Amino acid sequence: MTDTIIKIDLSKSAYDNDQVHNRWHPDIPMVATVKPGDDFIVECYDWTGGQIENNDDASDVRDVDLSQVHFLSGPIKVEGAEPGDLLEVDILDIGAFPDNQWGFNGFFSKKNGGGFLTDRFPEAQKSIWDFNGMMTSSRHVPGVEFAGILHPGLIGCLPDKKMLDMWNTREKALVDTDPERVPELATLPYAETAHMGRLTGDEKDKAAAEGARTVPPREHGGNCDIKDLTRGSKVYFPVYVDGAGLSVGDLHFSQGDGEITFCGAIEMAGWIHMRVNIIKDGMAKYQVKNPIFKPSKMVPKYDDYLIFEGISVDEDGKQHYLDTSIAYRQACHNAINYLTQFGYSEAQGYAIIGCAPVQGHISGVVDIPNSCATLWLPTDIFEFDVQPNSEGPKKHLDGSIDIPKAPDL
Amino acid sequence: MTDTIIKIDLSKSAYDNDQVHNRWHPDIPMVATVKPGDDFIVECYDWTGGQIENNDDASDVRDVDLSQVHFLSGPIKVEGAEPGDLLEVDILDIGAFPDNQWGFNGFFSKKNGGGFLTDRFPEAQKSIWDFNGMMTSSRHVPGVEFAGILHPGLIGCLPDKKMLDMWNTREKALVDTDPERVPELATLPYAETAHMGRLTGDEKDKAAAEGARTVPPREHGGNCDIKDLTRGSKVYFPVYVDGAGLSVGDLHFSQGDGEITFCGAIEMAGWIHMRVNIIKDGMAKYQVKNPIFKPSKMVPKYDDYLIFEGISVDEDGKQHYLDTSIAYRQACHNAINYLTQFGYSEAQGYAIIGCAPVQGHISGVVDIPNSCATLWLPTDIFEFDVQPNSEGPKKHLDGSIDIPKAPDL
Amino acid sequence: MTDTIIKIDLSKSAYDNDQVHNRWHPDIPMVATVKPGDDFIVECYDWTGGQIENNDDASDVRDVDLSQVHFLSGPIKVEGAEPGDLLEVDILDIGAFPDNQWGFNGFFSKKNGGGFLTDRFPEAQKSIWDFNGMMTSSRHVPGVEFAGILHPGLIGCLPDKKMLDMWNTREKALVDTDPERVPELATLPYAETAHMGRLTGDEKDKAAAEGARTVPPREHGGNCDIKDLTRGSKVYFPVYVDGAGLSVGDLHFSQGDGEITFCGAIEMAGWIHMRVNIIKDGMAKYQVKNPIFKPSKMVPKYDDYLIFEGISVDEDGKQHYLDTSIAYRQACHNAINYLTQFGYSEAQGYAIIGCAPVQGHISGVVDIPNSCATLWLPTDIFEFDVQPNSEGPKKHLDGSIDIPKAPDL
Amino acid sequence: MTDTIIKIDLSKSAYDNDQVHNRWHPDIPMVATVKPGDDFIVECYDWTGGQIENNDDASDVRDVDLSQVHFLSGPIKVEGAEPGDLLEVDILDIGAFPDNQWGFNGFFSKKNGGGFLTDRFPEAQKSIWDFNGMMTSSRHVPGVEFAGILHPGLIGCLPDKKMLDMWNTREKALVDTDPERVPELATLPYAETAHMGRLTGDEKDKAAAEGARTVPPREHGGNCDIKDLTRGSKVYFPVYVDGAGLSVGDLHFSQGDGEITFCGAIEMAGWIHMRVNIIKDGMAKYQVKNPIFKPSKMVPKYDDYLIFEGISVDEDGKQHYLDTSIAYRQACHNAINYLTQFGYSEAQGYAIIGCAPVQGHISGVVDIPNSCATLWLPTDIFEFDVQPNSEGPKKHLDGSIDIPKAPDL
Repeated sequence: MTDTIIKIDLSKSAYDNDQVHNRWHPDIPMVATVKPGDDFIVECYDWTGGQIENNDDASDVRDVDLSQVHFLSGPIKVEGAEPGDLLEVDILDIGAFPDNQWGFNGFFSKKNGGGFLTDRFPEAQKSIWDFNGMMTSSRHVPGVEFAGILHPGLIGCLPDKKMLDMWNTREKALVDTDPERVPELATLPYAETAHMGRLTGDEKDKAAAEGARTVPPREHGGNCDIKDLTRGSKVYFPVYVDGAGLSVGDLHFSQGDGEITFCGAIEMAGWIHMRVNIIKDGMAKYQVKNPIFKPSKMVPKYDDYLIFEGISVDEDGKQHYLDTSIAYRQACHNAINYLTQFGYSEAQGYAIIGCAPVQGHISGVVDIPNSCATLWLPTDIFEFDVQPNSEGPKKHLDGSIDIPKAPDL
Repeated sequence: MTDTIIKIDLSKSAYDNDQVHNRWHPDIPMVATVKPGDDFIVECYDWTGGQIENNDDASDVRDVDLSQVHFLSGPIKVEGAEPGDLLEVDILDIGAFPDNQWGFNGFFSKKNGGGFLTDRFPEAQKSIWDFNGMMTSSRHVPGVEFAGILHPGLIGCLPDKKMLDMWNTREKALVDTDPERVPELATLPYAETAHMGRLTGDEKDKAAAEGARTVPPREHGGNCDIKDLTRGSKVYFPVYVDGAGLSVGDLHFSQGDGEITFCGAIEMAGWIHMRVNIIKDGMAKYQVKNPIFKPSKMVPKYDDYLIFEGISVDEDGKQHYLDTSIAYRQACHNAINYLTQFGYSEAQGYAIIGCAPVQGHISGVVDIPNSCATLWLPTDIFEFDVQPNSEGPKKHLDGSIDIPKAPDL
Repeated sequence: MTDTIIKIDLSKSAYDNDQVHNRWHPDIPMVATVKPGDDFIVECYDWTGGQIENNDDASDVRDVDLSQVHFLSGPIKVEGAEPGDLLEVDILDIGAFPDNQWGFNGFFSKKNGGGFLTDRFPEAQKSIWDFNGMMTSSRHVPGVEFAGILHPGLIGCLPDKKMLDMWNTREKALVDTDPERVPELATLPYAETAHMGRLTGDEKDKAAAEGARTVPPREHGGNCDIKDLTRGSKVYFPVYVDGAGLSVGDLHFSQGDGEITFCGAIEMAGWIHMRVNIIKDGMAKYQVKNPIFKPSKMVPKYDDYLIFEGISVDEDGKQHYLDTSIAYRQACHNAINYLTQFGYSEAQGYAIIGCAPVQGHISGVVDIPNSCATLWLPTDIFEFDVQPNSEGPKKHLDGSIDIPKAPDL
Repeated sequence: MTDTIIKIDLSKSAYDNDQVHNRWHPDIPMVATVKPGDDFIVECYDWTGGQIENNDDASDVRDVDLSQVHFLSGPIKVEGAEPGDLLEVDILDIGAFPDNQWGFNGFFSKKNGGGFLTDRFPEAQKSIWDFNGMMTSSRHVPGVEFAGILHPGLIGCLPDKKMLDMWNTREKALVDTDPERVPELATLPYAETAHMGRLTGDEKDKAAAEGARTVPPREHGGNCDIKDLTRGSKVYFPVYVDGAGLSVGDLHFSQGDGEITFCGAIEMAGWIHMRVNIIKDGMAKYQVKNPIFKPSKMVPKYDDYLIFEGISVDEDGKQHYLDTSIAYRQACHNAINYLTQFGYSEAQGYAIIGCAPVQGHISGVVDIPNSCATLWLPTDIFEFDVQPNSEGPKKHLDGSIDIPKAPDL
């Protein structure tokens, strides 16, 4: 029997669980210890710590407190791990809890976080996805069912103080270029809602004031939201502190490349089964700065795709210089527009490319001034035919079902 | 027998072939006519029109005249195609000429075009790749051989005048923001080296002065440099002029996502076998703005990858806001650094990720302020083991072979 | 929450569970009812009903009572299903019980069932496989770990009386050609160990005397042992009786094509999550005699293989006429011989090709007199390199570990 | 430029080309020499040596002289190869000649060779397949187009005398069990139509009388008809004579597993590009008896299949004991019956599963008395939907086109 070294209780606040934290700081105490070669199970809250419910009302998405995210389980001490090592992590399995076989996808209000297409979708919306064994479908998005590609959106080791300071410095410098922007340019330390695990008293207060927010991916990995870090993959994480301090959370049942809706995967609470090993001095040996990983042998083989292109000319026709994010955004628009011809609402199209195992490829990044990005939409996830043909698209949906919206107050 | 409707003679200048052009303009006369359902073969110069030779001297890459590129074969009239239609193109096959079973990859000088990593590789270099049947290897990059994923870097239909004007206007506006920049922000019309196909006299001069350069991908497709547009794929191109006016060129034997070295694929002369059909009024029916396509059933199954992450913090540690190009650039650096540990020079590493069937994925684009991009390096292209392990990397190459360099004069 | 409509208790005899049966007969009463569109969970004993234990002693394999197998959960009534329909079954997920994360593979004694290579492996042996999340490895077979391809070895609908009679008649005719053979040519009805579910009294006795044994696959599917019927697949079963009467069991964590060791997969107890629908009159509409199915989108991508050929010349050099079973047997021998060069015992080689996701292809069946069959051994399941090269194989194992054997008494 | 070391002239008889032979014998003189590491091109007649023409008349298939087959190009001497070595062959590419972009598939008359389903299709039929770049389609089989998986049906090294004698002895023993059977049980040496390459005079006569026919696959490989030996694959052949003596022929554009129609692939003339290397003493080092090989990285990804099962109960309802050939034959019948529901004739169904990249899997070989075999039919090769659904199949073809038949005279 594999040990579950971190347990959670969904009926209680994540703040009451001292094996959980929501900031990055080297002083957060280890909450469990494992040895190289061990495999173990860790339970995780959903990234919001239970703020979103399984219902047809998107007001919880609209009102979410994003300063609380992400609730991570850990840090876990790996015996023998030292700064400069690589921590090899086998992601052996991931699942939802038997009584919670569902997840959510949300679009945040532009006033509260937004998303990749927030100008097109400025108000909060929410879809609920039911897990049917390995498959998922949504009562808010008819006609689509697909296999899960379960992965942790967020995983990595504790930074040391030097790296933490570097993060805070560079991100503050960015915010300072436009401090009043909505949404903000970066999320800076914010003590009020910090959960520092087992830290207490002054130590906690000090660390909470410095603790890096969990939103961006950084050198240690963190919130990479890489769908391919799925069960069966093997990841090599840089180690910065003695014992490594591995933390994990933000489990996703599925996600499209880019996690474009920001609340952007099918978000869920659940458990993750891992095995750890150490490559001594691996960072220097392999010149590793960011994590490297190997994909799983076990991923859905959706090999028939419709591929949409985008270039770095924005929605207003303005030419940008090799901006791959804008190019991908145009590919997203193109995919959504295409799906509407089959009867989907624009919001449903947005949810589909956010949730399904969509690929986002960087196709050309040197052909000045246009980057070219492609969005790969798997066609076999649809119950009906979405291929182009000479007869034109057929509307398979009557529009009677849509994704709940909660207008800004 | 399938007809070869456009032939070329590699021993003669591309300027002497009136079935070739190197600018986009609606007035360029059609040079061949096909019917829906026809399949046909088109021969193509390499994108530089033969400026680069199969030798060990990179001075031709250094001295390349980029104002001449890309030499395209066409335009081809498709009977019945009208503005608003979609032109369905089956890419049935692509090959090099029997006597020219080789291609080249180059890094341009930063002073003359540059590339994605031009600050790291500011001087011209060139590697020659031999085609061994479906496979390719290079005398300048030992220890690597891989299957080709042949594709046209550049393909699309003629723009109409309105679209041409829009392109020129928006690109000029971008250049005007920093007109002295080296490399330039965009390539504007340049009559001197324009090859306008069968246009002559004043008509030619007028069109040459307006003709859009072929470097960037645009709404019609064009220089998308999408490696997945390989033989076996099916593409749906927007049609803007009567007869469509399909042109094609810039054939690649292989390329990594991003075409990062700019001269960036394994560039070759050769032929392409296509079949065309028309979807009447397809642009409106399917809401198509940029081309859409379906991938080939026939692509190399390199399914074991080492995946490198990058985030939008640049080489100097500066934080950028969701800049996916910078994130991918960091992933490229990380991959090159990794490969050097096995004995490759940095330039060889750069060439490998530019030429091999490397994937570039957009992994996270909403986790402010860091985009996360991933570079997928297939491990089975190497003759030796490049997996990380506890013993550390083994140098398989002694450094005696490198990629020829031609320093700036 | 999905309902678990059949539950089992591993601490109790399968004979005590009246939702279980081990013979095929139309009179076995339905034990649960579902509607088209429903999804539900069914728990299953391992195929032997718990005769094999997680230890290092193969005597339980030697002494197994094969007249008891297979213990199936069901039959399940599907409302509205009628003879001639097709029952569409989505296999949504399969798992072992949390407290029983292990399975077994056995070679039966030639005197008690035997196996595909029983002349080479005439005595009972047993290996235990631990489930590490999605992966499995064995303390008896070092150096190998692979992703599970979980599937029911046995699934199908109840036969009607006419079909049952046909089965019994044709199998008896075969046995009658050599009634004393060991192992027997077929397993005929045997009342003594029959478990007829909720049948009692005379009805039970009558049915037990007629009930078809569960060993062979037949027109209804049954014990097909097709590894590709894995979670994510969709199967269309012929329906012969009102309500269909779907039964399932013999869950496998993994298996190579052929299930060559007979106890031949990694056998386990566990649960299966299914969804059912009906295609009315589907047997005639689609001319279906045996089940048809669609593979899962979610299977391990072991795409690098070593492929071994075999032809229909037997171990003694005797030429047979287009005998594909003999050809595949030779391919199995060749694969085992190859593996011994890396340090595996012959028994370990046999277990590996029996348990791992090995493919068995029918390659040529018309080139008289030799059939050609191929065995595809995935190379990425090994922790070391098993590719051929000019230096010859390296012994990675010292032979200190082998598979427990229980000699015949 | 790669050398073409064996050339053919399709306008001349294969008997006039002394670099060709149609029997296996150690005395056949080498006709070309290569060194380890060399790559080279070999041209090949189609297996019949041009007996079949591109027309709509199947009489050439009916009247074919099978004693002439297969015309092989070689033997090629590999310097340094000795008995006991393994000859590593990279199959780098394969193609049809530019002026001969077509192939044929035939059903032989039951009186002259027959095929796997000869009782259902007792008379000669022929379909012609046009090559559209990488794709193929047939004017005799509408609605289907698929990517080629080009491979040599027949390839291997010369036997030594001892092996030749063993072949002849065991095959004669088989024939002697039923010498009058039609079709015959095996094809024995037959001097009259033997083409012994450069052998002349008495030496030729002697060898012709002993030379093994090329029909069956044997220990050296030979006529394996393994579709997966496609371009991009790597094969390790046993070497029996000094210089190896590699011969090759019987090129196929595509084939389903089993090559069930006997003339059974899409047969073509063309060229093959190979590279050779030697593993000294490889047969003993790796315990190699039959060839082993690694599949190509480049094969069509037809990943959506309809899978048909068959068991070893024959067409008359008779129970056979673990006969995998019979099981596969039933799966073939089931697939053909299914396809007729969409409008195909039975013969077209037979041709499709013979020509398309159909997989044949050995699924269960121990569940006495029934073997279970599966036939995997790729669904994406059809221009219309062939999936089962609740509405039943739709006839897409009106039956106006069928495969030419030539009744027995």
